[in-house]
Amino acid sequence: MITRHKIAPNGPEFSRLVYGTWRILDETDPARCSPQALLSRFKACADMGVTTLDTAEIYGVYKVEEAIGSALKLDPSFRSKIEIVTKCGIYIPCEFHPERKVGHYNVTAARIIKSTEKSLRLMGIDTIDLLLVHRPDWLTSADETAEGLNKLLKEGKIRSAGVSNYNVHQFDLLNSRMDQPLVTNQIEFSLLHMDPIYDGTADQCQRLRILPMAWSPLAKGLLMDKTDPAAARLHAKAAELSAKYNGATLDQLAYAWIMAHPSCPLPIIGTNKLERIKAVVDAAEIKLDREDWYGLWVAAKGHGVP
Amino acid sequence: MITRHKIAPNGPEFSRLVYGTWRILDETDPARCSPQALLSRFKACADMGVTTLDTAEIYGVYKVEEAIGSALKLDPSFRSKIEIVTKCGIYIPCEFHPERKVGHYNVTAARIIKSTEKSLRLMGIDTIDLLLVHRPDWLTSADETAEGLNKLLKEGKIRSAGVSNYNVHQFDLLNSRMDQPLVTNQIEFSLLHMDPIYDGTADQCQRLRILPMAWSPLAKGLLMDKTDPAAARLHAKAAELSAKYNGATLDQLAYAWIMAHPSCPLPIIGTNKLERIKAVVDAAEIKLDREDWYGLWVAAKGHGVP
Amino acid sequence: MITRHKIAPNGPEFSRLVYGTWRILDETDPARCSPQALLSRFKACADMGVTTLDTAEIYGVYKVEEAIGSALKLDPSFRSKIEIVTKCGIYIPCEFHPERKVGHYNVTAARIIKSTEKSLRLMGIDTIDLLLVHRPDWLTSADETAEGLNKLLKEGKIRSAGVSNYNVHQFDLLNSRMDQPLVTNQIEFSLLHMDPIYDGTADQCQRLRILPMAWSPLAKGLLMDKTDPAAARLHAKAAELSAKYNGATLDQLAYAWIMAHPSCPLPIIGTNKLERIKAVVDAAEIKLDREDWYGLWVAAKGHGVP
Repeated sequence: MITRHKIAPNGPEFSRLVYGTWRILDETDPARCSPQALLSRFKACADMGVTTLDTAEIYGVYKVEEAIGSALKLDPSFRSKIEIVTKCGIYIPCEFHPERKVGHYNVTAARIIKSTEKSLRLMGIDTIDLLLVHRPDWLTSADETAEGLNKLLKEGKIRSAGVSNYNVHQFDLLNSRMDQPLVTNQIEFSLLHMDPIYDGTADQCQRLRILPMAWSPLAKGLLMDKTDPAAARLHAKAAELSAKYNGATLDQLAYAWIMAHPSCPLPIIGTNKLERIKAVVDAAEIKLDREDWYGLWVAAKGHGVP
Repeated sequence: MITRHKIAPNGPEFSRLVYGTWRILDETDPARCSPQALLSRFKACADMGVTTLDTAEIYGVYKVEEAIGSALKLDPSFRSKIEIVTKCGIYIPCEFHPERKVGHYNVTAARIIKSTEKSLRLMGIDTIDLLLVHRPDWLTSADETAEGLNKLLKEGKIRSAGVSNYNVHQFDLLNSRMDQPLVTNQIEFSLLHMDPIYDGTADQCQRLRILPMAWSPLAKGLLMDKTDPAAARLHAKAAELSAKYNGATLDQLAYAWIMAHPSCPLPIIGTNKLERIKAVVDAAEIKLDREDWYGLWVAAKGHGVP
Repeated sequence: MITRHKIAPNGPEFSRLVYGTWRILDETDPARCSPQALLSRFKACADMGVTTLDTAEIYGVYKVEEAIGSALKLDPSFRSKIEIVTKCGIYIPCEFHPERKVGHYNVTAARIIKSTEKSLRLMGIDTIDLLLVHRPDWLTSADETAEGLNKLLKEGKIRSAGVSNYNVHQFDLLNSRMDQPLVTNQIEFSLLHMDPIYDGTADQCQRLRILPMAWSPLAKGLLMDKTDPAAARLHAKAAELSAKYNGATLDQLAYAWIMAHPSCPLPIIGTNKLERIKAVVDAAEIKLDREDWYGLWVAAKGHGVP
C-alpha cells in the first residue's frame, strides 16, 4: 500500500501517488471514457491506495471536470474516499468560447471564484480539497489572486490553495498575501527535467515544509524515446539495474527516482491504462540505492557529478 | 490627466509617466536645448501631468544636470511643481576627467555624497526627491553604500533612496542595511525585454509594495526596427489592434503594455519631441484587454503561452 | 603580515589567505610530500601568517588527510597554532572502496558523523575548526544533514559548520535547519569565474555577515593559458599594470582582485611551491585602485561595464 502524506502543516492528506486525469478523454473508443469506465478506474486507483485525483479546468479542453462529475454521480458515496485537486487560470479558444482569440492566463479574484464554482458544479461536489493556480498570470497582482483564494478558503469552497509552475519569486510573492500559506507548488520534475533541484523550487518547498507535486514524471513521453541520447543512456542504465530491482522497468525507476528526492514530491500518473498505474504503484515500493540514484542522474546528464 | 502614485509606503508621490532627460542635449540645433527650450518642455510635460523628471549624473556625459539647472533657474517657482530623480555611481572618461582610464562604478559613501552635492549644485536645488544608485558596484560593500544614502536622507539632501539595475540579491542586500527601505528599482522593461517578469525583480517590488520604474520602454529603439523579427511581429499585431484602441500606434501600445503590469511600473519617456510625449500621455489612457496584452506577449515571443 | 578575520559572528578566526592541500600529494618526488616536508611547508605558511589549512576527505583520493596527520604528529604543539578546515560528502570509486560504482554525494547525518570521525582520526586531532559540506547532495534532506552537523557541533567534534558550492536556495534551506548559523560558503571565484558577483552567493554572504572562501582563484590554471582569449587579455592588462604595483604578476593581481571584493573572500592557495605561496602573501598587500579593479573586469569580459 502506498503511503499517505500531509502535504503541508495546514494542508490535506494525500496519497503519495496522484492519479492525473489530463488525458482521460483521449480515447478513440468512447466506452473507455464513459462515466462507468472512469468511475471504475478511479475506484481501482483508490483500491491501490491512489486516492488523490488531479485535474484542471482546462483538461480535455474544458471537458474533463464534467466527465469526472458524471463518473462520481454514479456512486455519491465514493466522493468521501478520495481527494480532488483542480486548477484554474488557463483560457484558450474552444468550442464553449469561440470568441477567444489567444490562449492566456487569468487569475483575478473574480475569475478564480467563477472557475472554482464551475469546477464544483461540473464535478458535482461541495468542496475542492486543493485548488491550484495553474500558471503564474503576469497580468494579475498577487493581492488580487490572494483575494480570490482567501475568499474561497473562507467559504469552504476549497480546503487548501496552492500553485503550479511558479518560480521561487512568484511563490514568495503570492504566499506573502495569503491568509493561509500555500500548500504546494506543482512543478515539472523528472529525470529529463531536473530544474527543480537547481532552481530553488524544491528547496523552497522543503524549507517551508510543504510537498511539491511532480507533473510529467516521464518527461512528456521523451523518456520512452530511445532516439533521444539522454533517454537512450537511461534505457541502458535501467537495463543494468532492472534485475536488482525485481525486473523494474525504466518508467518504474523514473518514478522511484523522483520519489526518492527529499522534498517528497507526489508524482502524477498520467496514463489511462490500469496495468500502467499498477506498475507505478509497484514502483513506489522501490527503494533506490544511493549509488543507483546517482547512477541514473549520471546517465541522464551524460557526465559524472561535479 | 495621468494618475499619481506614492512609489513606496515611505516614498514620494510621482506621476505615472516620468520624463527622461537622457537625451535632452542630443540635439543638432542648440536652440532646442537652450535653458528656455528645456524649461518650456518641462512645463509642457507638467501641464500634461508628467511632473516627475528622471536624470542622472552621467547623462549627456555629465552635462545634463547642469542644463536642467539652467532651465530651472529661469523660473524658481517651478521647482516646487515637479519631482526630480537623479542617479549616481557611473564614472567614465570625459572632458572633466581626462585622467580616467576606464568606465567604472563607485558607490562608496564619500562618492555618493560628493556626487549628490554636485547634483544639487548643478541643478540649483535644495533636495533631490529620489536618488538612485545607478548600477550595482561590485567593489563597494552594502554597508558603505548604505552609510552614504542614510547620511543624505538624514540631512535631507535626498527625500528617498532607491536603486537601478539591481538583481533581487543585490536589492535584498542593500535594503538590509538601509535605515529607511529602498523605494524603487529602476529596471529595463519592455515588450522586447521582459526579464523583470521572470527574474524576480518585478515580483520583489510587488511583494515589498514599491513601484519599479521602467527604462527603455521602447527597447532602445529596437521596437521600431522592422528588420527585427520580434519587432516585425509586434508591428503586425499593433496594426491589427490599432482600430480597437482609437488608432493607437505600436509605441503607444508598448507603453500601455508595460503600464498594465500589476507591479505598476512608471515608464520613462525618453524623447525630446513634445508630440511624442503627448502620444505617450494619451497611451496612459489605454486599457488593454487581457487577450490583447497576451496577444502582444505572444507576438513578442513568437509562440503561445506555455 | 596578512590580516585575520572572524569568518562569521559565530565563526572561528582565520587567516585572510588559506593554504589549500588539494594537491600536496601530487608530487613525483616522494620526499616533497614526506611528513617532514609537509610539516615544514605548513610551518613556513604559518610563519607568513597563513595559519588556516583547507583540506577535504576526498583530497588525494582520500589520502591527504592522513598525510596531514603524519605531518602534525611530528610536532604536536603545532596544532594549536593553526586552524583546520575539512569537507565531507563526496564518494568516488577508490582503492579503499573498490565496491563503489559511481561518484556520488552523501551528507546524511550518519555519513557526516562517520566521515568527520575518520577525519579526526586520520589527522590525529581532537576537533575540526570548520567542517564544510563539500557539495549539495540532492538526495538528502536538510533536516538530515543539519542533524549530523548539529550533533558534531554539540559534541565539540567541529567548532563550526559551513558549506561549499551551495547556491542561494540550498544555503537558505540548510541554514534554516541549523542550531547555529552556517559560517561560510566556499565557492569558485576568480577573474575567469565571476558567477558569485551575479548569482547572489556573494551577496548572501555579505547580507548574513559571513565571509565566503574562494576556491580556484587562478581558475583551475586557465588564467595562465595564454591561448584562452580572456586569459590573453588579462595577461596584457597585467603587463600594463605590473610596474604600478611593484612588478606584480598576473596571478598576484588575480588574488588581489578577489581580495578586494567587499564580501571579503578568503582565497585558497593551491600550490606546493613555497615561493608561489610567498608571492600570494605579497599579493595580499596589493591595494588595487578602483579603476584597475574594473580594468581587470573589463579585460576578463572583453567589454566595458554596462
